Amino acid sequence: MREVFHQSLEDLQARLVEIADLVTVAIDKATRAFATSDVALAEEVIADDAKIDALAITLDEQAIEILARQQPVARDLRIVVTALRVSASIERMGDMAEHIAQLARLRFPERAIPKGLKGTFVKMGELDVEISRTLSELLRTGDLRFADTIRNADDDVDELHATVFEKVLSDNWKGEATATVDATLASRYHERFADHAVAVAKKMVYLATGDWQVSEAEIALAVEQQQELGHA
Amino acid sequence: MREVFHQSLEDLQARLVEIADLVTVAIDKATRAFATSDVALAEEVIADDAKIDALAITLDEQAIEILARQQPVARDLRIVVTALRVSASIERMGDMAEHIAQLARLRFPERAIPKGLKGTFVKMGELDVEISRTLSELLRTGDLRFADTIRNADDDVDELHATVFEKVLSDNWKGEATATVDATLASRYHERFADHAVAVAKKMVYLATGDWQVSEAEIALAVEQQQELGHA
Repeated sequence: MREVFHQSLEDLQARLVEIADLVTVAIDKATRAFATSDVALAEEVIADDAKIDALAITLDEQAIEILARQQPVARDLRIVVTALRVSASIERMGDMAEHIAQLARLRFPERAIPKGLKGTFVKMGELDVEISRTLSELLRTGDLRFADTIRNADDDVDELHATVFEKVLSDNWKGEATATVDATLASRYHERFADHAVAVAKKMVYLATGDWQVSEAEIALAVEQQQELGHA
Repeated sequence: MREVFHQSLEDLQARLVEIADLVTVAIDKATRAFATSDVALAEEVIADDAKIDALAITLDEQAIEILARQQPVARDLRIVVTALRVSASIERMGDMAEHIAQLARLRFPERAIPKGLKGTFVKMGELDVEISRTLSELLRTGDLRFADTIRNADDDVDELHATVFEKVLSDNWKGEATATVDATLASRYHERFADHAVAVAKKMVYLATGDWQVSEAEIALAVEQQQELGHA
């Protein structure tokens, strides 16, 4: 029974990593489609989001099945609860990638990235892809140093998000309303993508420490603690 | 033990309703602050969001405590799992109200609602407030007809959201970049508020039926079924 149970928990973790990996593919394709006006790539992202949604639902059902049949306690319970909370965030990350792709498709064959913002959005896209890859590693290994990496990268995304608004609201901004709308929405999608990853990172800290409410500063403390204890 | 357990479940429900009621106050104040450039009202919303966040965290901890100590099964398990999923959505609704208030405060003493969009945003605000009140009723009573009401009101919000973009992207749009950005963000906040309420409504259908994946059409079916069975 215990063996079956541990297999269930490992399956849960493997599925989470699987979904996170699909999200990495999605955000990589979406940000590239957005930067290069690649409508075929955008269509792939949009079509593949259904797979991410379906896997998240299956994972949720599995988690609830474990709760119902195994009635886990202590750390095992935290694992299952974390999986439930985290799947919702990862699924939203997939949605953000889809929204970016939809914007690229909507404006095709025009560029969706407004003039003067290409460098900024390429950087935001690269950060989001790095965040997504790091998130997969965090889910795979539980090594909280990855949580810290995500937190720092999110700070960088927030800075770029602020510069988008600075540029759009400056006297130099030559963009028409369409470009302004696209910049606003696209920047928000990239920023929300990173925010969700931080939310997942905090939940992984909860898993390690049992503390439900985790501030970003507490991520760093939890990393130190994990290193001292020799866990990863 | 059973009595204590049922009290725990009732407490959970009562807390959910409490948070939903606070969100109703928040969205009502936020949309009024946004429409009338009332910075004092906006400040109240922003300050009070911390209360919503804190209550959501406490509710989550309570739900996990019930899972750990009571190991609920069947419908009781669904109640606890639903509470966990729903608290996250309601807390996000509070965030959307806060974002609307922050926009109002940011532009004060100027109006945050761009010229030509006042009627639209007042309507979106009224719909969001109605949706929030209805959500409280749904959480309080479990009557799925409220889920249907929310779904229909969300459709109306989506229509208004579309008209915001139509206006902003039309040749008549005279707004500067600031007005364009504000219209884009504000419309998205109102629309996401309603979306989250629909997500909660779907989870209440899950609670009643046990089906995890609920389409909007299935809400109507679940309402009929509940009526036929005489439950509410």
